[in-house]
Amino acid sequence: MEVTNYLLGYKNLKIIQDNTMFNFSLDSVLLPNFITLNKNIKNILDIGTGNGPIPLILSTKTKAKIMGVELQKDVSVLAQKSVLINHKEDQIKIINADINQLKNELESDSFDVITCNPPFFPLKDTSKLNDSDYKTIARHEIKLNLEQVLVIARKLLKNDGVIGLVHRPERLVDILTLMRSNNIEPKKLRLVYPKKEKEANILLIEGVKNGKKGLKILPPLYTHNSDGSYTNEIKKYFE
Amino acid sequence: MEVTNYLLGYKNLKIIQDNTMFNFSLDSVLLPNFITLNKNIKNILDIGTGNGPIPLILSTKTKAKIMGVELQKDVSVLAQKSVLINHKEDQIKIINADINQLKNELESDSFDVITCNPPFFPLKDTSKLNDSDYKTIARHEIKLNLEQVLVIARKLLKNDGVIGLVHRPERLVDILTLMRSNNIEPKKLRLVYPKKEKEANILLIEGVKNGKKGLKILPPLYTHNSDGSYTNEIKKYFE
Repeated sequence: MEVTNYLLGYKNLKIIQDNTMFNFSLDSVLLPNFITLNKNIKNILDIGTGNGPIPLILSTKTKAKIMGVELQKDVSVLAQKSVLINHKEDQIKIINADINQLKNELESDSFDVITCNPPFFPLKDTSKLNDSDYKTIARHEIKLNLEQVLVIARKLLKNDGVIGLVHRPERLVDILTLMRSNNIEPKKLRLVYPKKEKEANILLIEGVKNGKKGLKILPPLYTHNSDGSYTNEIKKYFE
Repeated sequence: MEVTNYLLGYKNLKIIQDNTMFNFSLDSVLLPNFITLNKNIKNILDIGTGNGPIPLILSTKTKAKIMGVELQKDVSVLAQKSVLINHKEDQIKIINADINQLKNELESDSFDVITCNPPFFPLKDTSKLNDSDYKTIARHEIKLNLEQVLVIARKLLKNDGVIGLVHRPERLVDILTLMRSNNIEPKKLRLVYPKKEKEANILLIEGVKNGKKGLKILPPLYTHNSDGSYTNEIKKYFE
């Protein structure tokens, strides 16, 4: 069923969701709040934009033009509707395309920032396959894998351009090695923990094309207090 | 001046230090408390053992034989004295040698565990060079660099053997890529923060020779409370 929700934490933003497809997640709220944005940024590419939460949140933080690319047509239609009801059509362009194809039509070295909340699971993890094609494609590396994301970033980012990813800690080694082998130097890492004394369950990472070596690991982000309530930092995003 | 200190947190251990060389640090206490030890472990190699804090602490946690290798003769003499005053000579063997040479004389695939608190700084960081040769060699990659440590681990570890390192967060990408290129899969990472809201300043990492993919990121370790006092976890080691 298609419903219009307010994008939590951004009270003047609305987002259209369809729970037979998927809802936007905490991941999609954390990433646009993590990535480094400065006033010189002219354009941003969001790969696998889903129903558009990352472009919509970014639009409150920057005047840069934002292109959101979504493979699944029905999902991209939701994103496009959300852009329209928020009157963001001058800033955000939603494209229904396979980024692995589209990358060849886009100009090399042309984006200041790329964001991506990619499929998390390697294809071999068939045990976790979800019944819905929508979810399966969003969660599993069927149509887009981590290496492809970084190959795309290498091609499309300007020199010193930034890519930000949200992913799972068990893939950190893959992420760092693939970034470096694609001339993207990891510069900023933040680990997200469900609560104190638990292992990290989300990671946020930023790399710079042809950047200098030297990673900073930011303070941990906890999502929940020990009593199960949201922490203040998360409340800032979600209230 | 040579002085005998009690090894903090291990009240029945004494360690001989000489403040014209260097004192053992928090790093050397954190690593032996981080590394996975099980009852089947027969032998451990500590590379760059300094005045021996890691072998001494390990000796309270395992019955395995421990070999500590130290390049600098004067420093290795201190380590040897500490072994003797603690009556650990049946368990700990201190060798004054360059591990890059010694590795050729040691049997391949022969150690269950390797620990190393290696020099942290790449050689180009000459700005940070210390006047004392003792400290310079311990801190800068003059005689031993990260890649050499992992090449040694690849040769000397048994299959499924474990290497544990303490290092600096800015080298995380180097560590993970060099581990993987030496068939050592990073499995466990813990980040140490000086206090809340600060960037990490120490990392603890464990890799397994020919291990399966899948990194766990443990809960953060804070060394200090916001009032500057040690946290309870650190007090456990230092009181």
